[in-house]
Amino acid sequence: MRREHKAVMKARARNIALLVAYDGTDYHGFQRQSPPVVAVANVLEEKLALVFNDSIELAAAGRTDAGVHAAGQVVNFFTDGRIPIERVPMAVNSLLPRDISIRDAWEAGRDFSARHSAVSKAYTYRIQTGRTPDPLATRYAWHVRDLLDAEAMRAAACILLGAHDFSAFRAAGGAEMSPVRTIFETRTKRDDCGMIEMYFHANGFLYHMVRNIVGTLVDVGRGRKTVGDFARILESRDRRQASPTAPAEGLVLERVWYA
Amino acid sequence: MRREHKAVMKARARNIALLVAYDGTDYHGFQRQSPPVVAVANVLEEKLALVFNDSIELAAAGRTDAGVHAAGQVVNFFTDGRIPIERVPMAVNSLLPRDISIRDAWEAGRDFSARHSAVSKAYTYRIQTGRTPDPLATRYAWHVRDLLDAEAMRAAACILLGAHDFSAFRAAGGAEMSPVRTIFETRTKRDDCGMIEMYFHANGFLYHMVRNIVGTLVDVGRGRKTVGDFARILESRDRRQASPTAPAEGLVLERVWYA
Repeated sequence: MRREHKAVMKARARNIALLVAYDGTDYHGFQRQSPPVVAVANVLEEKLALVFNDSIELAAAGRTDAGVHAAGQVVNFFTDGRIPIERVPMAVNSLLPRDISIRDAWEAGRDFSARHSAVSKAYTYRIQTGRTPDPLATRYAWHVRDLLDAEAMRAAACILLGAHDFSAFRAAGGAEMSPVRTIFETRTKRDDCGMIEMYFHANGFLYHMVRNIVGTLVDVGRGRKTVGDFARILESRDRRQASPTAPAEGLVLERVWYA
Repeated sequence: MRREHKAVMKARARNIALLVAYDGTDYHGFQRQSPPVVAVANVLEEKLALVFNDSIELAAAGRTDAGVHAAGQVVNFFTDGRIPIERVPMAVNSLLPRDISIRDAWEAGRDFSARHSAVSKAYTYRIQTGRTPDPLATRYAWHVRDLLDAEAMRAAACILLGAHDFSAFRAAGGAEMSPVRTIFETRTKRDDCGMIEMYFHANGFLYHMVRNIVGTLVDVGRGRKTVGDFARILESRDRRQASPTAPAEGLVLERVWYA
């Protein structure tokens, strides 16, 4: 049934890809939900349906969770709608609320899947440190009262580079087959006002992987865990060894790469 | 009557100063409003009254307008409340919504006035440029579709340095006596993603002065006005020569200096 439905979708004339940004604060994640719960996909599909005069079903590169943001989410959909591609961003943005925006649109090949064609993704996670939260940062950063040792966090993050079994940082709800992922790059920077920004580029991420890594890195920054502890947690493949999941608000899906 | 009221206030034992940050998006400016209109001061005074068990009347360094933000607003108030000063930020923040936060609190001298003792202030104004708005920037930046010439804007902003009659950039509602202000420093920077941040440090600002300056600088950035036009507008002292007021969301009161 599901497979037949996909075949019908693919029979449509165009495969359109969109680069999408959103403030996830007020949404129940990206993936379409049943009303009255509203996800980013519900809003996007509704507005795209108006512009393309067609029913729209989106596939997305990253299934961001409730409260997680995106600067560079990629989605695609099949349609017979006829609007010229260069007019799509303006036409849809004029209907979208301020917290969702289409940054670019292009005609993709028949076989392009925003989800399955992705070869790597990058996320950032921002942490504001200090006694009192900054209300201008609070929508997009986790507020941690302790002053964190960013150098220790950087050293621990570097341990993640390369291919590892990330089971220690995989949420119970994760349905992925293999727990092995390859992290290409990590970056940790701290600004003068105590904002720490962490960057992770990998060929893929397990469910809650970035937020579980960050939760544990923050305990390293607090001095509750050493860099050696962090290495042992990764090696243990045991989720119970790692720290609690960092909250959603600090996480941004920055970019998706395709071959 | 008003003078007597102030005398009563000053008879109280303590003069407390607060460093306050807020996201102004959902407030009708800083200055107290009559319900149901809610300003930042309404919320702050209500929570301070609970913590100090006293009626509270705030004076603020900058009367930010509806939708304008603050990273470093300063306020003061007189009270007989007895909570130790070091416990004030945490106690009040635990009652405040996420979009208002007390960053610091200190005992000020009897003669300190957050408003009248201020010797200078700095504001930033952020502009995101490009065809589509970035929803992660939209609460804190004006979205301008045109790609702006930041170098021309920088050159024009430098014309503002020093003491000038800023009548050309003064809103009709401005009640200040003299239209002369001294701008100490301007900065214009553009990041790789088209975000332009402008910084203005002056001994004071007329009503809507930063937003009127920015509105006109954006027309310089668009090429609709030259740097020479900008100089002539300043010299004209005629508000009708300048461009429309830039919107509130890009403006942040960054810092207030005291002698």
